Amino acid sequence: VAEVDILKIDKSKNQTLKDKITEEIPLTIYLNKKELLTLLCSPDSLKELSIGFLYSSGLLKSAADIKKITIDSQNWVSYVELKSGDINTQQVFKRLYTSGCGRGTIFYNALDFMHKKRLARDFKISPAKITELMHVFQKKSIIFKETGGVHSAALANGDEILIFKEDIGRHSALDKVIGEALIKKLHTGSLMTLTSGRISSEIVLKAQKIGSPVVISRSAPTDQAIKMAEACNMTLVGFARGKRMNIYTVKERIITSE
Amino acid sequence: VAEVDILKIDKSKNQTLKDKITEEIPLTIYLNKKELLTLLCSPDSLKELSIGFLYSSGLLKSAADIKKITIDSQNWVSYVELKSGDINTQQVFKRLYTSGCGRGTIFYNALDFMHKKRLARDFKISPAKITELMHVFQKKSIIFKETGGVHSAALANGDEILIFKEDIGRHSALDKVIGEALIKKLHTGSLMTLTSGRISSEIVLKAQKIGSPVVISRSAPTDQAIKMAEACNMTLVGFARGKRMNIYTVKERIITSE
Repeated sequence: VAEVDILKIDKSKNQTLKDKITEEIPLTIYLNKKELLTLLCSPDSLKELSIGFLYSSGLLKSAADIKKITIDSQNWVSYVELKSGDINTQQVFKRLYTSGCGRGTIFYNALDFMHKKRLARDFKISPAKITELMHVFQKKSIIFKETGGVHSAALANGDEILIFKEDIGRHSALDKVIGEALIKKLHTGSLMTLTSGRISSEIVLKAQKIGSPVVISRSAPTDQAIKMAEACNMTLVGFARGKRMNIYTVKERIITSE
Repeated sequence: VAEVDILKIDKSKNQTLKDKITEEIPLTIYLNKKELLTLLCSPDSLKELSIGFLYSSGLLKSAADIKKITIDSQNWVSYVELKSGDINTQQVFKRLYTSGCGRGTIFYNALDFMHKKRLARDFKISPAKITELMHVFQKKSIIFKETGGVHSAALANGDEILIFKEDIGRHSALDKVIGEALIKKLHTGSLMTLTSGRISSEIVLKAQKIGSPVVISRSAPTDQAIKMAEACNMTLVGFARGKRMNIYTVKERIITSE
């Protein structure tokens, strides 16, 4: 967190004071010694972000594909070396282009999307548990967020949050979580994805890549996200605030009394 | 706005009902008959979005560079033909890659950034006027936003909002506004940029491209955005809520009584 001088204007008085500001750094990722791209992100968990980003962009199958990863935090560069030296950069560019951009992904790789493993049908969760998890998720955000400018993402099992990350971008926050899950070799097929931001189709795609059967947000999903979730049997929970929530898809995973 | 069946869970009762959902469509932009990229966006103002996106990506100098633009709203394709047929796609890809991504831009094109025209020093605005404009901005958002999943952006002079657009992405919302300003040939050098989202360096870059001297948001800026704004003499106003606001840079443009 950086500090800057601001002029604070209120009804009656103006004052100059120090304010805490979210840091934003440019992380350039080199893949097998070739510059791949630069992400603007928060300066923590850069190893996790690199791995998570490469994984959700389809460039890694698992953390085991990586030979070596070095973070130069003086110059904000991440050097990733894969065991396999061959990468189709043309394909990579096309992919990242559509799916890597915060503007969102599309069905460009619909086939790729549909060929992925099926999401666990038998995973169940109660509304009370969702309320509890989202309460903890929110509290974590409040503790970490001194600046008002951060998104958060998490992976949780039926009982607790296992990984929690923050970033200025909601996609990078989720990539950091995914990266750590890969490093820790967690069985993500039985973990739910929590996000502070809206559920766009790109968030669904990332959750689907790790086999997460349920995505929960305080915020709204888009219609494209709902269509994609429907297509891959993912449960989408939106507007999860207090004891209220909306279930958009695959309602069977939610244990309701009725 | 699309409609879907949802399961609404509340403390006491669960009910199935129809809910309104933000639409998200994949818009593929062809530049001189060559596929450039696909943006996920809300399905309105696609012409404005195409022009604004190409402009803020550095591919257009003005709307006059365009020979013809056709929107195929059956297949969500935008065909843009420029008067000049020559485009350095390699450069384009590099550019879009870093600056087009929602993940944000970086100083990759710092030189390009610094070479732009200087922002008007003599533009002044009072906190009371900012409060009033943001009140109108918020109200417009509330009217249009039935779904809870939309960002908005606007251009305003010292008196009123001239252009207002919404999109699922805050970058595309601003690109739509920029596109319409170019079509209408507005003198953007004396207009302020209003955004519903956080002020990242990419938002500053877009505002700087059109020469907008002041950027205002209800939300927080990042430290990189503050550095960039400082470097190009742009006034950043964050946390503009009611009569309160924080001025981060070039405070001289704000008329304070003290």
